[in-house]
Amino acid sequence: MTNRNDARLIALDWGTTSCRAYLMAEGGVVLAERRQPLGTMAVTRHASATGTPHVLAFEQSFEEICGGWLESDPDLPVIACGMVGSNHGWAEADYRAVPADLVSEGIVLTRVSTRRGVTVHIIPGLIADSALPGVMRGEETQILGALTANLRAGTLDYASERIVLLPGTHSKWVRIIGTTVKDFATYMTGEIYALLTTDSTLSRLSVRPVQSDWMAFDRGLDVARSPAGRGGVLNTAFSARSLVITGELAPDQVEDYISGLLIGHELAEIDPAWLADEPNAILLCGEAALNDRYRRALQRLGVDVDLAVPGSAPLGMWEIAQITGLLTLVKQ
Amino acid sequence: MTNRNDARLIALDWGTTSCRAYLMAEGGVVLAERRQPLGTMAVTRHASATGTPHVLAFEQSFEEICGGWLESDPDLPVIACGMVGSNHGWAEADYRAVPADLVSEGIVLTRVSTRRGVTVHIIPGLIADSALPGVMRGEETQILGALTANLRAGTLDYASERIVLLPGTHSKWVRIIGTTVKDFATYMTGEIYALLTTDSTLSRLSVRPVQSDWMAFDRGLDVARSPAGRGGVLNTAFSARSLVITGELAPDQVEDYISGLLIGHELAEIDPAWLADEPNAILLCGEAALNDRYRRALQRLGVDVDLAVPGSAPLGMWEIAQITGLLTLVKQ
Repeated sequence: MTNRNDARLIALDWGTTSCRAYLMAEGGVVLAERRQPLGTMAVTRHASATGTPHVLAFEQSFEEICGGWLESDPDLPVIACGMVGSNHGWAEADYRAVPADLVSEGIVLTRVSTRRGVTVHIIPGLIADSALPGVMRGEETQILGALTANLRAGTLDYASERIVLLPGTHSKWVRIIGTTVKDFATYMTGEIYALLTTDSTLSRLSVRPVQSDWMAFDRGLDVARSPAGRGGVLNTAFSARSLVITGELAPDQVEDYISGLLIGHELAEIDPAWLADEPNAILLCGEAALNDRYRRALQRLGVDVDLAVPGSAPLGMWEIAQITGLLTLVKQ
Repeated sequence: MTNRNDARLIALDWGTTSCRAYLMAEGGVVLAERRQPLGTMAVTRHASATGTPHVLAFEQSFEEICGGWLESDPDLPVIACGMVGSNHGWAEADYRAVPADLVSEGIVLTRVSTRRGVTVHIIPGLIADSALPGVMRGEETQILGALTANLRAGTLDYASERIVLLPGTHSKWVRIIGTTVKDFATYMTGEIYALLTTDSTLSRLSVRPVQSDWMAFDRGLDVARSPAGRGGVLNTAFSARSLVITGELAPDQVEDYISGLLIGHELAEIDPAWLADEPNAILLCGEAALNDRYRRALQRLGVDVDLAVPGSAPLGMWEIAQITGLLTLVKQ
């Protein structure tokens, strides 16, 4: 049994909409977890509204979440990933250009010091210099955690090439060999879903469903891949309105239909090479509800899916802390 | 010179976001015009908020806009088109199935009576029973007005097949022969532009430009048609963020870049048959600023454009009032 005296690291998965803090022990074991809706967006808004200097607002949020842990153990090293390292975050961390090895010893962490004397180490993001540049912050750490967890569980062949798919607000498709990210692509599927189902002419005809309507979801998937789907999402999205008007879609089916439509377009429009990676399955690395949707959509195309062990971000941070000597340095 | 004593018709172009009322004389001449932000959405919201019966709320708005005209001339016939005829409008008007002749004598107007004793006649919309059904309300009347105006101006060959493009919140591509609508398609380009540039992760990196940046607009157009555009709009939209992060797009270029990107995808993804209607040009029938964008985008593809005479909706309503005997009936 581990207890709080075994704490070796504080790890912060600090994104746009929330901050999750983990107190971690040897082996990447999570001893305690705290979650606050203090995402980078909320922190910067609060800073602007109150005239608090930007950096101080982040420090206050950090203290609110982790202060208790640091009271008991002031020497704990602190590592963070996500949008906290963006130019709207606490301190701007680098982007490493792909191809990039996620476990390279050369990873440079960006350091911020607090008035308490704690140094927070922010993990760099990744950048892909394609025709349209790709950027990520936080997903690189989730991927490393997922690889580590699945390797430990024996469900992964380490050296092979594979696709990791991280569905979400901005879904990321990432091609890796071993622990090296070769390339990635971004789809704004989750964000456009939220915009269309929250305050649009489509949401006005929609009623929130009591439970997922898989028939409506599958219908959306199929439309996106049908000849009618060739008009693209700007065209097919309107059918979430016209089908209600003609009585062919119930108001409480609209959200699942749009979900199927958008995920269907994502899968129909992505370069087929991302889906043709047989015999290696796609490693799906998202929240359970979203994993269900993408797995269903991919299986409908005959593409196999492996599910990542959940909670991959803290384990990824643990690995980075280890590689970069953060654990050794502070605790020796 | 005409004056208000010559008034023969009140025509209401009553859409989702505004109501425009026209006092019209012989020949479809507009004597006076009133515009209120009392769109069907505002009226129904007001009705819900105040507990006013739905129909009464529309009558009150109608009185607010047209009451003065009816005081002077209580026998004026009243005609209306647009979302006022939807199931969220004043009274639900029919949809006529395409192919449909816009000047058919068989058009049935839906009648609503007010307590003042005035009857408002609502023009039916159109429905296309395609794989994904298409619906329109109001655009059919704008098209008729545009055809009438351009025929009068001698800029149109009446009998030929042509495409009428009505850009806007939901841009409509309409194939007509003479005055018969054969088919149409809808793109939610304007609405998705508004959603992405108002409150999204893209708008957060964006600064409203002082004037249109045509270089940024063209760049968006070109991306949509490039190999990088094949990923579809869910993918390319993210470049309005990543290009700012990499310093390749200025914050005040984001809006025009997204505008070009979305219009570019609309033109890249629509069935090419809609663009191949040479030698007949596309008749472009929108507001001036939007016409400029679509004309520029289409000319970049080598597609010729004719501009519709502006203010087509009232003239369309005048034509319908004439065809359906509304003018004769009431004034004889």
